[in-house]
Amino acid sequence: MKRVIGIDPGTGVCGFGVVERTAAGLNYLAAGTIRTNRGHAMPRRLMTIHENLLRLIDEHAPDAMSLERSFVATNVQSAFRLGEGRAMAMLAAAERNLRLFEYAPAEVKLSVAGWGRAGKDQVKSMVRKSLGIDRVQLADDAADALALALCHLTRSRMAQAVDAVRRMPAVWRRVGSVAR
Amino acid sequence: MKRVIGIDPGTGVCGFGVVERTAAGLNYLAAGTIRTNRGHAMPRRLMTIHENLLRLIDEHAPDAMSLERSFVATNVQSAFRLGEGRAMAMLAAAERNLRLFEYAPAEVKLSVAGWGRAGKDQVKSMVRKSLGIDRVQLADDAADALALALCHLTRSRMAQAVDAVRRMPAVWRRVGSVAR
Repeated sequence: MKRVIGIDPGTGVCGFGVVERTAAGLNYLAAGTIRTNRGHAMPRRLMTIHENLLRLIDEHAPDAMSLERSFVATNVQSAFRLGEGRAMAMLAAAERNLRLFEYAPAEVKLSVAGWGRAGKDQVKSMVRKSLGIDRVQLADDAADALALALCHLTRSRMAQAVDAVRRMPAVWRRVGSVAR
Repeated sequence: MKRVIGIDPGTGVCGFGVVERTAAGLNYLAAGTIRTNRGHAMPRRLMTIHENLLRLIDEHAPDAMSLERSFVATNVQSAFRLGEGRAMAMLAAAERNLRLFEYAPAEVKLSVAGWGRAGKDQVKSMVRKSLGIDRVQLADDAADALALALCHLTRSRMAQAVDAVRRMPAVWRRVGSVAR
């Protein structure tokens, strides 16, 4: 079993989504948003995010965190804000001893919707489908966080398969390719 | 009495400096740097900074934090890093209930060295002079952090003086200006 919490970081709205993979398949466990009061000073808002992330990790006990890695920002101030939000997630991961994996938005879209430039609605619909949660209400940031969790689980399963093939004796590998 | 911790934030090196103002004048209490291992992953480095900031605040019990406010960064990635470092300071301030004050580098230089474009050496020399600590070894980031603390104490004293004048009855204010 493997359980991962996806985080779509932000200082105003921070999305989270928890997914586990068992032998039977993928299970949706939780998703939602941490929202901070825009009237509060930034230190207090960051503390709200940090406290809630720790609470969510303690509640759902994931063993890894999948975090959005950004490369672009509209300006320096928004890059600072993004860095602050991401820092709360990274700190919580370190404090709770979770392994951290980072994925760029295009990687997530490609992995979940099969297309690196998929729109928000396409990603949300594929997230619902993969997890069988047609009736669960999902905020955009919560859907993005679930997509991050799914991206990690899918990619790590591919990596595992590649590893398994690599560990096979050479003769088996040849048989395998003939059988195909 | 007023005690402030100045923070020059960074994820590689984070400078700190603690200064108090008593009726007798300004006292140097502590200064130094928190250094993180560049070989470690960022979550662990952020945790090191966060833990050390909390420890320093608990040790010196300041009632305010003076933090460098940046407006510029060489690129988006360095803005993310700056945001992450500043986030650790903001979080620690909120967790220990310190009031947070932010000053731009030019404001600090103007207040401490009398010139908004003063060089690192000028700032360091004025910090030493103001605090009477000619023999204390000071890393650049520690000197910058002390300058931030001094900037806050000087500016808040000016603000207090202005407030005091504002609270005077109008007739006194007139007398005051005549006496000058």
